[in-house]
Amino acid sequence: MKEVEIIARKYFDQSLTDRERAIFEGGIALGALYHQFIGIPICKDRKLISNLERAIEEVMKLQPYRESVNVKINIEKIKGEKKHPYDYELLKGKHLDAKIIIKYGKAKATVAMKYIDELDYTLMYVERVEESV
Amino acid sequence: MKEVEIIARKYFDQSLTDRERAIFEGGIALGALYHQFIGIPICKDRKLISNLERAIEEVMKLQPYRESVNVKINIEKIKGEKKHPYDYELLKGKHLDAKIIIKYGKAKATVAMKYIDELDYTLMYVERVEESV
Amino acid sequence: MKEVEIIARKYFDQSLTDRERAIFEGGIALGALYHQFIGIPICKDRKLISNLERAIEEVMKLQPYRESVNVKINIEKIKGEKKHPYDYELLKGKHLDAKIIIKYGKAKATVAMKYIDELDYTLMYVERVEESV
Amino acid sequence: MKEVEIIARKYFDQSLTDRERAIFEGGIALGALYHQFIGIPICKDRKLISNLERAIEEVMKLQPYRESVNVKINIEKIKGEKKHPYDYELLKGKHLDAKIIIKYGKAKATVAMKYIDELDYTLMYVERVEESV
Repeated sequence: MKEVEIIARKYFDQSLTDRERAIFEGGIALGALYHQFIGIPICKDRKLISNLERAIEEVMKLQPYRESVNVKINIEKIKGEKKHPYDYELLKGKHLDAKIIIKYGKAKATVAMKYIDELDYTLMYVERVEESV
Repeated sequence: MKEVEIIARKYFDQSLTDRERAIFEGGIALGALYHQFIGIPICKDRKLISNLERAIEEVMKLQPYRESVNVKINIEKIKGEKKHPYDYELLKGKHLDAKIIIKYGKAKATVAMKYIDELDYTLMYVERVEESV
Repeated sequence: MKEVEIIARKYFDQSLTDRERAIFEGGIALGALYHQFIGIPICKDRKLISNLERAIEEVMKLQPYRESVNVKINIEKIKGEKKHPYDYELLKGKHLDAKIIIKYGKAKATVAMKYIDELDYTLMYVERVEESV
Repeated sequence: MKEVEIIARKYFDQSLTDRERAIFEGGIALGALYHQFIGIPICKDRKLISNLERAIEEVMKLQPYRESVNVKINIEKIKGEKKHPYDYELLKGKHLDAKIIIKYGKAKATVAMKYIDELDYTLMYVERVEESV
């Protein structure tokens, strides 16, 4: 284990398992992604949306123990092409799907976020947790 | 269990325990708090800082299963009183201590965030997890 | 004029009038307010909304040459009382009215922001500019 | 003039010149850019920084009357390469140079933002205003 991780672990509940730590980091990743990027101007331009998705993925992958970050902005939920100066939207939860894989020790947690119609809510959830033996 | 929670749980890994869910919500809470509020103008004014702390606590408590949200902005790390128009700071991780308690089913997770000198990093961690029998 | 302002003014177009500078600061104030606070969890609770308005006003007044900052979150546009864990909204442009007065030298600019139905847009505008003789 | 602009102009002080409107939009652009993007994780990786700069430029250009948006993240102010999980920074004002050109009617305003050592402050300023005859 890296020296910095030994320092960090002194602050954690000593009973925490690798699986729980991976889940915790997944929660941080989703909360951070959402509240950092909500409010960005967007429009129905595939190139712009795709560049923005890649940029978000790359920077959010810098946080600890992120194995992969996958961001999808739902372009079909953005209204039409920009026709006049005031015609664009701001990124909201309903546009934003994300899937993040966290790897900590022997555990791997896949967490995700998407807008759920039934709840009228952008739900963050733990999709799967695996442990290697 | 409330009907909305039954809907939400369909998206979660079915093996997730209450304890793990509480830890996950704790991660979301910390990631959200940090990335939502970083960048707010602040200065060494006790009343202003205290009002800001209370406002942050109240709004972040609206998210799911937060039992308590405690925010402390370290006023001693803010430079002196405002002396001229450009003399103020922006809220950063080093100013911000938070402790959040999540209650989900039988589990209670206490998560926290504070700046750790040794790491030169604002660490988010799981301080304690308890389960009622 | 304060020494810091003499330094700052070296970076500005030397032909800029006090009136123009006040308008510029007004633009900064609105752009900053909007993009800093959008995304905050809110619900239809008068006390919480009122505390949040005051906290935003106090911190945004720290920026240069702000004489007053007035923020109104339109509580009637927020859906009902919080009934379950996923039942809250995030602060959006449509909820947010602001009026900011900037005083620079002999000029005073009143700038404002509000959601305009006809444009389906949260417009930022210069409401009035006055100059003392 | 586009119909939407006729609607928008009803909200503005009727004495406002094109030059003043361009300056106002410049202020909004800088305030928005700063408070939207501060807090993004970054590290000393040229490709990542360059993709982030382009993404910010593209989205901020969607706002009204932006003719060009130029963003430069000062990679030399970022500490070394990422060596361990907690080794990255968050985007701050000191990293961020921007130059934005606004074109409104006959006026063109060039506004900019950069960290000024003497002020220990990320100054936003109007670099130049031109009017075509």
